[in-house]
Amino acid sequence: MDLLFLGTSSATPTRARNVSATALLDDSGKGWYLIDCGEGTQHRLLRTPLSLHGLRALFITHVHGDHCYGLPGLLASAGMARREEPLDIVAPAAIEAWLRATFDMSRTALPFELRFHPVETLEQWRSPQLHVEPAELSHRVPCYGYRFTEARPDPKLAIDRLERDGIPRGPLWGQLARGHDIELDGRTLRSERYLDFARAPRRIVIGGDNDRPELLARACEGAQVLVHEATYTEALVHATGNPFGHSTAAQVATFAEQANLPNLVLTHFSARYQPGGRAGRSVEDIRSEAARHYRGQLFLAQDFLHLKLRKDGALEVAETTAAAAPAAAPA
Amino acid sequence: MDLLFLGTSSATPTRARNVSATALLDDSGKGWYLIDCGEGTQHRLLRTPLSLHGLRALFITHVHGDHCYGLPGLLASAGMARREEPLDIVAPAAIEAWLRATFDMSRTALPFELRFHPVETLEQWRSPQLHVEPAELSHRVPCYGYRFTEARPDPKLAIDRLERDGIPRGPLWGQLARGHDIELDGRTLRSERYLDFARAPRRIVIGGDNDRPELLARACEGAQVLVHEATYTEALVHATGNPFGHSTAAQVATFAEQANLPNLVLTHFSARYQPGGRAGRSVEDIRSEAARHYRGQLFLAQDFLHLKLRKDGALEVAETTAAAAPAAAPA
Repeated sequence: MDLLFLGTSSATPTRARNVSATALLDDSGKGWYLIDCGEGTQHRLLRTPLSLHGLRALFITHVHGDHCYGLPGLLASAGMARREEPLDIVAPAAIEAWLRATFDMSRTALPFELRFHPVETLEQWRSPQLHVEPAELSHRVPCYGYRFTEARPDPKLAIDRLERDGIPRGPLWGQLARGHDIELDGRTLRSERYLDFARAPRRIVIGGDNDRPELLARACEGAQVLVHEATYTEALVHATGNPFGHSTAAQVATFAEQANLPNLVLTHFSARYQPGGRAGRSVEDIRSEAARHYRGQLFLAQDFLHLKLRKDGALEVAETTAAAAPAAAPA
Repeated sequence: MDLLFLGTSSATPTRARNVSATALLDDSGKGWYLIDCGEGTQHRLLRTPLSLHGLRALFITHVHGDHCYGLPGLLASAGMARREEPLDIVAPAAIEAWLRATFDMSRTALPFELRFHPVETLEQWRSPQLHVEPAELSHRVPCYGYRFTEARPDPKLAIDRLERDGIPRGPLWGQLARGHDIELDGRTLRSERYLDFARAPRRIVIGGDNDRPELLARACEGAQVLVHEATYTEALVHATGNPFGHSTAAQVATFAEQANLPNLVLTHFSARYQPGGRAGRSVEDIRSEAARHYRGQLFLAQDFLHLKLRKDGALEVAETTAAAAPAAAPA
């Protein structure tokens, strides 16, 4: 399970950071999931090896434009690339109505089906690779984080249970082994019931915009990684008095420390924090504030940062497969 | 009057070209106009000296996403930059409804007014600097080109007419000289009536998507420059049989030659034409096909190409003020 950050700025793009989008890659190296889709996400993808044909599902945290305005263009480009596979979209219900209105306005007919799952009423989204549960957050508008749990960590068929339940040896066993539920004699048999797992599942929690990190306490149980916004420092919020529904670095770090999270990735920085900015205006202010409250492994996301969550639960910077921008290609 | 190309790819962005957007700059160097606004236009602007505070008006050619999906993000960013000046938007009526639905969905309140002018019923949009007239084109959906005419080429007050019409010397003369119409004794007095111009006005025609360039014949009268899509070559259209409502390089060049246009700028190239692509796949194919039919000055647009239309009507590549992308900033 890898994380590839495609946009790490809040509200508005800067020259170095795009607005929110995070890719979660499965171990195959082909399948991936997109969490939020700010304007220009498809442009970021052009600089990675990820294909719109490999996109397995989309998760949107909330309706603010810097988290969803890139959806129409990304989906239209997937259509022009002749994607035919249906695409699951977990998002606030208002996103579906807006996307349909947008495609209607622009006379766009996609050659693949959009399958919407309103996050407001969703308990779990499942695939053979992942289980995903939303967690309600606190922001100016309804907002959700998502917990991604590896569905089948090094699976092995549980022969004894298969035989006890009278499931005939053969192709059905293979389907169960690959994570597919099956129908037999009118019963639905869940793949997981017939698998044993050699280790604990990997688990990553990706928050949306949120001024109460503690709302993710349950979601973070058993998680190795929390990705969370840290839009401001405490100093700034004390000076201006209004965090606009966002968290400070100190707040998130304090929560991560209490929750015993081994890895914390901060992202979604206000454009006032720049690389190499002067004191009070530098992303290093975010880093040092967080480090004062958190003793685990701390990362500050930047666009194209590629992190690998190993099977043993360790998080490390990957030798990136994402292309940094060559000087000749200013897209 | 300068042209700064912000997006020159059709349909979908590539690493080198964004989707459609063209800036027209007035001589002040601060005021500018945007023609089309594909996704990621605001990102392109971050690499130019243009400010969203200097944007005087927006012109949209048609509803296809690669020409308008960048509007919500650009307008939201203008709001976050605290623009307060109202903004005129000339566009198909459906764009207004969609933008209002988009801002409603994303709970976005702009701190400035949007003043929509449905292009379907618009005869002329006027400012003290420019007169703009739409021209209906032929595409898969209703589409419009725009003719931009300099309103006041080196103006000089016509003292005789001012005195004959009994307009008292003083501040009113100043207003007329600066291009503002005035009210006097219940009459509306047009600035132009009281100005003499030392030379012919500069005039630029910017087409939208269009498979019949000859529809721009009237608009091109007196124009020094035509900017027009040349999505494909003839060879490709002959092979595939469907230009999807677009023009070939030969078609546009033939029209420009017949219309005696001194300058032709081609843009909106299919992503199959790449810089340095092999024969049949190179933008050089577009150039050579056009050059076979056109003897004027021919330009192929690329992102950040900056052209200056001099007062004497000559078009030349400007020493660019737009920043090319440094390797360190992959936005």
